[in-house]
Amino acid sequence: MHANRIWIPPDHPRAKSLYTREMLVDGYRRGLVTAEGLIAHGRGEAYDYLIGERTTKTAQRAIKAAAAMLLLSKRPVISVNGNTAVLCPRTVAELAKVTEAAIEVNLFYRTEERERAIKAELETHGADNVLGVGSRASATIPELQSERRRVDPEGIYRADTVFVPLEDGDRTEALVEMGKTVITIDLNPLSRTAKAAHITIVDNIVRAMPAIVEAAREIKGGRSLKKIVGGFDNKKNLRESLKIIKGGI
Amino acid sequence: MHANRIWIPPDHPRAKSLYTREMLVDGYRRGLVTAEGLIAHGRGEAYDYLIGERTTKTAQRAIKAAAAMLLLSKRPVISVNGNTAVLCPRTVAELAKVTEAAIEVNLFYRTEERERAIKAELETHGADNVLGVGSRASATIPELQSERRRVDPEGIYRADTVFVPLEDGDRTEALVEMGKTVITIDLNPLSRTAKAAHITIVDNIVRAMPAIVEAAREIKGGRSLKKIVGGFDNKKNLRESLKIIKGGI
Repeated sequence: MHANRIWIPPDHPRAKSLYTREMLVDGYRRGLVTAEGLIAHGRGEAYDYLIGERTTKTAQRAIKAAAAMLLLSKRPVISVNGNTAVLCPRTVAELAKVTEAAIEVNLFYRTEERERAIKAELETHGADNVLGVGSRASATIPELQSERRRVDPEGIYRADTVFVPLEDGDRTEALVEMGKTVITIDLNPLSRTAKAAHITIVDNIVRAMPAIVEAAREIKGGRSLKKIVGGFDNKKNLRESLKIIKGGI
Repeated sequence: MHANRIWIPPDHPRAKSLYTREMLVDGYRRGLVTAEGLIAHGRGEAYDYLIGERTTKTAQRAIKAAAAMLLLSKRPVISVNGNTAVLCPRTVAELAKVTEAAIEVNLFYRTEERERAIKAELETHGADNVLGVGSRASATIPELQSERRRVDPEGIYRADTVFVPLEDGDRTEALVEMGKTVITIDLNPLSRTAKAAHITIVDNIVRAMPAIVEAAREIKGGRSLKKIVGGFDNKKNLRESLKIIKGGI
């Protein structure tokens, strides 16, 4: 049914966006991404288009704050879903190494088969000790109804900071409620996720993840980490992102 | 892999949007919709969110102009893809009846299996004589590379007006180039499709299609059809839609 793949000319003005889309469709075929994940990606594409498909200076500030916060945390965890695993498995593994964070698979549409496939994808790209798969996810986040409430007692449950790229509003709010510091990537600055998180990176995950790794490497061991985090104002940052989107329309 | 369907509470603030999403995912499983169609739907969701998930007065004007244009045309054709067939098969059939338009299946990712499935879906919901399936699509639209260039000589090829809900920019431009009057539904007023078409309805297809049927029934046989079409300014209408989106952000 999907035999007619389109060849994307490298000089196509939106080649990168189309290539990312194909990665995700491929991830769907490999059982890593859900149909809902594809639709969510489409929403992201629309907001990315409005923001000009680039990492804004505003996003860059959030990226730096996120890197500093992960480096300052005692038990940081990177929460990975299907879309994240397909779009940036290597940078997830790199970020975990440089910030000494754990990686936990956490899915909205949870099946053990898909969890295992995502874990394998991350490991192929250099991740080790991936948490949250199968019976490991035995703790629960209070007040959450979806399967996403199940978390690893060694991971998200005891984390001080959770980095949840591409998260939904309910879960972000529940994590904040539990006292976690929450970092997210969300192209829609109006979403509940964007508003509930402590640090919201309004950017495409494909651009933001390598940028966080780079920022973390740059500032690691430096004395300014607390200053970077302290000087970051998420509400102001979201307002600026909105302004950029408005200006581009 | 997709066993964990979520029950959508009817009082959920975005129940309608979630229900529409589920219809599309179901259409994907039934072989009517492609993975790319799911992503495209996600883009639509984002713009619909920005426009307030309602049919604006601006959209209502375009809807009325579209209905009048279809009624005035000698050989109008409604071009149907997978997403359209899944989201509003009944109103496509109704609109074809009230405006005496033909229905033609026309796919970007073309396989005869999918064409037949879409034709069957439309017929189940009351459509007859669905064009464009298999060897019927023997004519071609010049300057188009995708499989979408193949059209039915009895349908789009000889049509004076083509209604293409959910179309891509290349094809819209090619149809305009061929001298067709093109009507489209596109939630992004900045898209090439929105700009190239003669009448662009900036609305969710799920709301717009029944509204076009209603408008066509209301004005059919009246003397004001030409006046309605003549008084419609697509550029101005797109500017107004943009303003509404900006105002909502």
